[in-house]
Amino acid sequence: MAVSNAMTSDFLHSAYGGESMAHMRYLTWGAVAEKEGFPNIAKLFEAISFAERVHANNHFKEIDGTTSDATVTAGAVFGTGKTVDNLQGAINGELHEVEQMYPVYLNAAEFQNEKGAQRSFHFALEAEKIHADLFAQAQNAAKEGKDMELKSVYICPVCGHTVLDGAPDNCPVCGAKKDMYKKF
Amino acid sequence: MAVSNAMTSDFLHSAYGGESMAHMRYLTWGAVAEKEGFPNIAKLFEAISFAERVHANNHFKEIDGTTSDATVTAGAVFGTGKTVDNLQGAINGELHEVEQMYPVYLNAAEFQNEKGAQRSFHFALEAEKIHADLFAQAQNAAKEGKDMELKSVYICPVCGHTVLDGAPDNCPVCGAKKDMYKKF
Ligand SMILES: [Fe+2]
Ligand SMILES: [Fe+2]
Ligand SMILES: [Fe+2]
Ligand SMILES: [Fe+2]
Ligand SMILES: [Fe+2]
Ligand SMILES: [Fe+2]
Repeated sequence: MAVSNAMTSDFLHSAYGGESMAHMRYLTWGAVAEKEGFPNIAKLFEAISFAERVHANNHFKEIDGTTSDATVTAGAVFGTGKTVDNLQGAINGELHEVEQMYPVYLNAAEFQNEKGAQRSFHFALEAEKIHADLFAQAQNAAKEGKDMELKSVYICPVCGHTVLDGAPDNCPVCGAKKDMYKKF
Repeated sequence: MAVSNAMTSDFLHSAYGGESMAHMRYLTWGAVAEKEGFPNIAKLFEAISFAERVHANNHFKEIDGTTSDATVTAGAVFGTGKTVDNLQGAINGELHEVEQMYPVYLNAAEFQNEKGAQRSFHFALEAEKIHADLFAQAQNAAKEGKDMELKSVYICPVCGHTVLDGAPDNCPVCGAKKDMYKKF
């Protein structure tokens, strides 16, 4: 585990902070969606909240194993509006991770030859692409005052891969087997 | 809702970041305790993780309602060791909140007459005192290789008040009724 290079270590800490806050706000926004009468959008928030937990946990485990304090600087989105606005916040956050944060962090981990961090950043980056797309679909429905159409959401507990209505035989990102996926 | 003063707003953001990360690491450390054969310590981590979620959610709601990005700086504890070490990390984090962070944040919110933030910081401060004590009890057991003795843990979903084995008629911190407590 234990990361050797300070820059990759800082990025793991920051990514952990960002994922922990994303996990938390999706729980909060899921409860808002439920109250607004969008149970499927609420389910999407709950499921993706779990995917962010997987990412946070992966980053946490790549950080050195001894107990220590750190001051963490991380990006987060705030807002306690209606679901259509909360989904815009979610899309903004995911796109920031996809277009800027994780590509830069992954590049640093490659440059510093930090294998564990590369894996953890790669897993997150791949899932965030899907999250941005799913939240955009949800927002299209919410803009028309409708709930999103979905039966269930499946999350890979190893990498956070996210898919609607049925898990693949093997996770396309990490290879985990179908029966490991958590269903929401 | 909407906080007026920048300093209290910064402290709410920081406290939200800190609570989100505490929520997350207690989920992680709970899973470690379960694997080490301490199901009651695992239950304590899981329950207190929920209390930190209550705190995070309270702080989040006190921050201005429009969707916006922010860079959050927050303290966190890291470490993926054995349960006895993880509990030391938990105690350190709770004591930092009790002895330094929340007293300073509460003082600022009082000075700036931010009523909502005062309430949210006060709720967290009172719960963290109990958390520090419960984690110390858990660590005393773990040091002897034993699980903690408890039947159940009850959390007030309004303020995060935490109590073992039975909820009071009314929460001593926020007044919520007994039947609102969440049992773990
Ligand atoms: Fe993520
Ligand atoms: Fe995501
Ligand atoms: Fe996967
Ligand atoms: Fe807390
Ligand atoms: Fe606490
Ligand atoms: Fe309470």
